[in-house]
Amino acid sequence: MDSGEAWPPQQLNLTAVPQFPLVCAGDDLAQLLLSRLPAPDAAAGAGLAAGAGLGDGAGLRDGDVLVFAQKIVSKAEGRWVRLADVAVSQRAQALAAQVGKDPRLVQLILSESRRIVRAARDVLIVEHRLGFVLANAGIDQSNVAPAGEGECALLLPLDPDASAERLRAALAERSGCRLGVIIADSFGRPWRVGTVGVAIGVAGWAAVTDLRGQPDLFGRTLRATVVGHADEIAAAASLLMGQAAEGRPVVRVRGLAAPQAMSDSRALLRAPGQDLFR
Amino acid sequence: MDSGEAWPPQQLNLTAVPQFPLVCAGDDLAQLLLSRLPAPDAAAGAGLAAGAGLGDGAGLRDGDVLVFAQKIVSKAEGRWVRLADVAVSQRAQALAAQVGKDPRLVQLILSESRRIVRAARDVLIVEHRLGFVLANAGIDQSNVAPAGEGECALLLPLDPDASAERLRAALAERSGCRLGVIIADSFGRPWRVGTVGVAIGVAGWAAVTDLRGQPDLFGRTLRATVVGHADEIAAAASLLMGQAAEGRPVVRVRGLAAPQAMSDSRALLRAPGQDLFR
Repeated sequence: MDSGEAWPPQQLNLTAVPQFPLVCAGDDLAQLLLSRLPAPDAAAGAGLAAGAGLGDGAGLRDGDVLVFAQKIVSKAEGRWVRLADVAVSQRAQALAAQVGKDPRLVQLILSESRRIVRAARDVLIVEHRLGFVLANAGIDQSNVAPAGEGECALLLPLDPDASAERLRAALAERSGCRLGVIIADSFGRPWRVGTVGVAIGVAGWAAVTDLRGQPDLFGRTLRATVVGHADEIAAAASLLMGQAAEGRPVVRVRGLAAPQAMSDSRALLRAPGQDLFR
Repeated sequence: MDSGEAWPPQQLNLTAVPQFPLVCAGDDLAQLLLSRLPAPDAAAGAGLAAGAGLGDGAGLRDGDVLVFAQKIVSKAEGRWVRLADVAVSQRAQALAAQVGKDPRLVQLILSESRRIVRAARDVLIVEHRLGFVLANAGIDQSNVAPAGEGECALLLPLDPDASAERLRAALAERSGCRLGVIIADSFGRPWRVGTVGVAIGVAGWAAVTDLRGQPDLFGRTLRATVVGHADEIAAAASLLMGQAAEGRPVVRVRGLAAPQAMSDSRALLRAPGQDLFR
């Protein structure tokens, strides 16, 4: 093997934070996370071999990106709505009949959305007030514990970029590390089967990386090379989070190259005028 | 930290294979890869510390997934077309004027496609003969060395699932390991800015994981939880591959849970009748 290339080669390490508890409204997610990242000394004291636990001894390091599942951010922010408390409009009632969903849920979806992109039996795809195009305005009833009596639904965070920034600032202050924070959700897609992780909030990192204008391997200029960087990070983290009972809502990503420029999740939103699929 | 959960926590390790050479038609990609994965003894003999190089000493291990960039698979399969050799139809000529692209490239796109999904200035999104909906039928001119004289374009592999299976079989035979192979490309998306890695060929692994019917954390049954598993792996690998001059076309993914069931990339294709965005 010759040595013309940087060595060791680029590596990426993803670790699901162990033992994350069920999250309640008002919980301090930064604190919950830090209490589950063993400090090097604590790990040694507990008899953990180097490399056990979170893999590298130190809990956090400059350049780490923490990916939080949207659900726990919404839960910590108390974004519950009791379905019994929802006043259903005539419009929601009619739409619910069309798509075959609970009218109270449809009302919540409409309240969270700018407009309907597609409606059909079992399908309600909207443009969320935050600009995301997604099914059911991101409102989910699975893995949502009833908050008090009655059935509840959980809305997306009010402002996921702001949530990510608060988490980043709290983690940076308490750890002394320069970190990125991504809030991830799973979205369905046109044309392809299955959900994939996407970034709905980004702080301290780049939502997109833009390689336009850089030369390719043969000196030709690259064309369409804006990369959905934070979405790829969210998709990678999603491989560890699982969807069901695993309960792994935070993943630490270590080894990413520092981004060229910071951007929040709005950089990932195509302007409606530049989109042929609305 | 209590011990009710499996320990160590789930981890994922991604490593870009170092020093991958430029690929030519006829190259044996399995052999090129294996020659770049240091065997444990060789690494020790070269004075590499444990954990250097490909991170874990052994080059391959049961359960590893190898992600190959589409471009090197196409190149190895000789999927070049010289633009000067393309006979342009009247339809391609008219469409090229509409979208503002090279008529010979548009002819190739049409030849590779079942139908046009959207055409507009600078945009030509088609349903590829393999079922993928993507821009320009996946034909790229960046990082494509001229093959002999004149400008060339590189088509997708004839049958990427078959290509993945050939690679998997060759690697399994020579390494003795049970492996997954994914052929990855970068696709643009409606609604969101930036390309993300997707799987266009899958062998020995699961393209999708289906959690429908499993209970969630609170015993409610999960609803929409088919996950685009191989797409998430491709997106994760894309974080290491880069788009430009880095030349990291193969990534080893280590630590994924063994899939419930194998499926090839066709499992990721939404049936046209189930798609509201064509």
